[in-house]
Amino acid sequence: MADFFEYIDANLDRWNDELDEFLRIPSISTDPERAGDVARCAEWLADHLRAAGIPSCEVVSTAGHPIVIGERPVDPDAPTLLVYGHYDVQPSEPDHLWTTPPFEPSRRDGRVYARGSVDDKGQVHMHVKALETLLETETGANLNLKFVIEGEEEVGSAHLGKFLAENADRLACDAVLISDTTMFSPELPCITTGLRGIVYTELNVRGPSHDLHSGSYGGAVVNPANALATILAGLKDEQGRATVPGFYDPVREITEREKADLARLPMDDEVMRADVGSTELGGEEGFTTLERLWYRPTLDVNGLLSGFTGQGSKTVLPGSAMAKVSMRLVPDQDPVEVVEAFEQRVRELTPPGVTVEVKRFHDGAPWVADPDHPVYDAAHAALEAGFGTPPAMIREGGSIPIVSMFEETFRSPVLLVGFGLPGSNAHAPDEWIDAGVYREGIAAIANLYGEIAVRLDDAG
Amino acid sequence: MADFFEYIDANLDRWNDELDEFLRIPSISTDPERAGDVARCAEWLADHLRAAGIPSCEVVSTAGHPIVIGERPVDPDAPTLLVYGHYDVQPSEPDHLWTTPPFEPSRRDGRVYARGSVDDKGQVHMHVKALETLLETETGANLNLKFVIEGEEEVGSAHLGKFLAENADRLACDAVLISDTTMFSPELPCITTGLRGIVYTELNVRGPSHDLHSGSYGGAVVNPANALATILAGLKDEQGRATVPGFYDPVREITEREKADLARLPMDDEVMRADVGSTELGGEEGFTTLERLWYRPTLDVNGLLSGFTGQGSKTVLPGSAMAKVSMRLVPDQDPVEVVEAFEQRVRELTPPGVTVEVKRFHDGAPWVADPDHPVYDAAHAALEAGFGTPPAMIREGGSIPIVSMFEETFRSPVLLVGFGLPGSNAHAPDEWIDAGVYREGIAAIANLYGEIAVRLDDAG
Repeated sequence: MADFFEYIDANLDRWNDELDEFLRIPSISTDPERAGDVARCAEWLADHLRAAGIPSCEVVSTAGHPIVIGERPVDPDAPTLLVYGHYDVQPSEPDHLWTTPPFEPSRRDGRVYARGSVDDKGQVHMHVKALETLLETETGANLNLKFVIEGEEEVGSAHLGKFLAENADRLACDAVLISDTTMFSPELPCITTGLRGIVYTELNVRGPSHDLHSGSYGGAVVNPANALATILAGLKDEQGRATVPGFYDPVREITEREKADLARLPMDDEVMRADVGSTELGGEEGFTTLERLWYRPTLDVNGLLSGFTGQGSKTVLPGSAMAKVSMRLVPDQDPVEVVEAFEQRVRELTPPGVTVEVKRFHDGAPWVADPDHPVYDAAHAALEAGFGTPPAMIREGGSIPIVSMFEETFRSPVLLVGFGLPGSNAHAPDEWIDAGVYREGIAAIANLYGEIAVRLDDAG
Repeated sequence: MADFFEYIDANLDRWNDELDEFLRIPSISTDPERAGDVARCAEWLADHLRAAGIPSCEVVSTAGHPIVIGERPVDPDAPTLLVYGHYDVQPSEPDHLWTTPPFEPSRRDGRVYARGSVDDKGQVHMHVKALETLLETETGANLNLKFVIEGEEEVGSAHLGKFLAENADRLACDAVLISDTTMFSPELPCITTGLRGIVYTELNVRGPSHDLHSGSYGGAVVNPANALATILAGLKDEQGRATVPGFYDPVREITEREKADLARLPMDDEVMRADVGSTELGGEEGFTTLERLWYRPTLDVNGLLSGFTGQGSKTVLPGSAMAKVSMRLVPDQDPVEVVEAFEQRVRELTPPGVTVEVKRFHDGAPWVADPDHPVYDAAHAALEAGFGTPPAMIREGGSIPIVSMFEETFRSPVLLVGFGLPGSNAHAPDEWIDAGVYREGIAAIANLYGEIAVRLDDAG
């Protein structure tokens, strides 16, 4: 383990200025008017990767925004690590809810506030500075490093998959490292070892061919809004479990090791309850909050629309009723099998007198790491070196579709080591990254490059 | 019984021209820019009531649109009939769906197409022409006649109640006659003897204080949209009955006489099903379609709104979910008791982790006529004289709040004899009145004035 803090602290002021410069570029990928800024941001990043020690750094055009590619080949026999990140950001609206302007970084209370500070420019910058640190303080790890930093993560990584497939040989690697996740608390570094999958559907229940007067027809025409409520209610039982046939059959039991990991975490239900603002938390019977979030599947209504929704009253018997319904999946649920069974269950629950259409939008398989792979030992050691405390293995309730994409393209393990924190407002006003975590995280990443070089070399 | 058809047919061409003139005035009460047209329409009507035989006819200003008052006192000892109607109309939008312009009356296929043709200017005009017929062909009925034709029915009769209360002595009457309802078919004149009441509510279910990411929080935070579906589904059982405590206790059994009336009607469920466009009709088990519409209460969802309702997918766990829910009531249900029990039931059905607020918008008691009152004998005889067939006693599934208002203000029976037809598009493009019904209805009304004079005189 190397102690990089002397170098880091000697250079932190300069890096802060650089980070501010990076964050000032409004690289909003969803806004066509910002395409020039997105491109400028890619060039800025390529310049700084070159300066950090990757001379062959390229900005590659795509049908969308460009991808920044950096390669540092040291030895064909050494292990190869591919670092993925993104330099594009979410829109900043509503701007009036920001304490300071989204693209004028502001440092206060030990945080850096700006759009992109945590998601993901700040974390990408940590990698650039970790590389600089490693190369300026040592002879450099015996590691072939490749960087793939895209500009379309916030718009669904539309052109990344094609690019990776077309450049699979050039980008071949032994492991993929992504820093775009969160820590459980500022004192507790984390490795994210599981993500839930998703299937997302829309139900359209149709009754009469047009809206009717609820006085003239109410009672004799089956009301699609009532029918939709019956269907949705019937999709869950009183224990909070989905009634989709076979839904829980492939769900893995929570292991003793996983339970031990969960027990280590400083989880406080009351803090979460107060944060979300509900009167109490709740979910599937027989599980804790973290088990519900990370190890158990869900069935949630994401939207409802039918009939009259304005102020006051209108006596309408609606012609149709719509619900968005999604399910979060865990290993080893299969999205296609789940959505088939879901549709079958919806049809069973649909009363005569209405019809139902089930649209499928997108799906993603759940993902779980193999924690016995040596990259996890490397991450464990490196995070302890950076933060002075051993990391926790956590999961995330959401989905990150690119994780499976990298795993399948390169047939290599993906390591998720991220430096966000709860409440970082990644997609909201007043986004921030913790300045202490930024500093310690750079040390951890520099160590991680070194550890991966050693451990994958040992393993290979 | 008098045969008025000779006079009617001799004057029908002139009356058609007059009706067209009346219908050309765009008396849209909801549109402030049409206030001048509404006022002009009131003056037109007053002029024509004067010409028909009511010299003392007045246009009375209100805080809204004016009310047209006509009085024809013949004898303080004779019975007094008050005729109510309205000369204002619904907006015409969407205009492009009209075959001919809404305020240029068009006669085709035995119908008169124009906004207001059936609701209610056409029916008001039938009364004006019935009065003319009566006075020009006989010495006139021994009946004190009063007309109250308002200009705000389509905007909720905001100033009518106050006006009636303030003029209760001047407008005192033995019966109220309203022609603003429908016939079952063009061949079958009808008396409407019952109206359903209503309570209209809005449920707001609140969970987290703001929308959450359904990946990060789904499964551990109670979802208000799922909770709303559970509440709404729980409000009805598998037999299509409301589960509100005591809901059915005050509901009157359908009598043998009512069943006989229903059996006379040429009801065809398949025609109605095809008209509404559902795959099949349905409702409370054990009742026919007309029983469900007229004699049984309902519980209908009128609107739903929660979370993401746009195109595609958004993984949101909504902070709240809203439903509009109304119940149609029948004798002897009490709106206040029903809404109290409803709110109690909603609270029982609300799961922990969310809260519910129940807003009450408006309510109206159900109404049922006393079919043994002599005005019903009068209507029976008069409609048979006009249409050549005895009338049916029907009900309406909707509510007409002014009916109870008249009944309570004057402590007199209200007689609903209307000349609309199914599919007349009262509030839709291509509104029409049947030209044959217009003609026969004038004869029926002229007879009705005479019959009421005789029968109420006998009764008094």
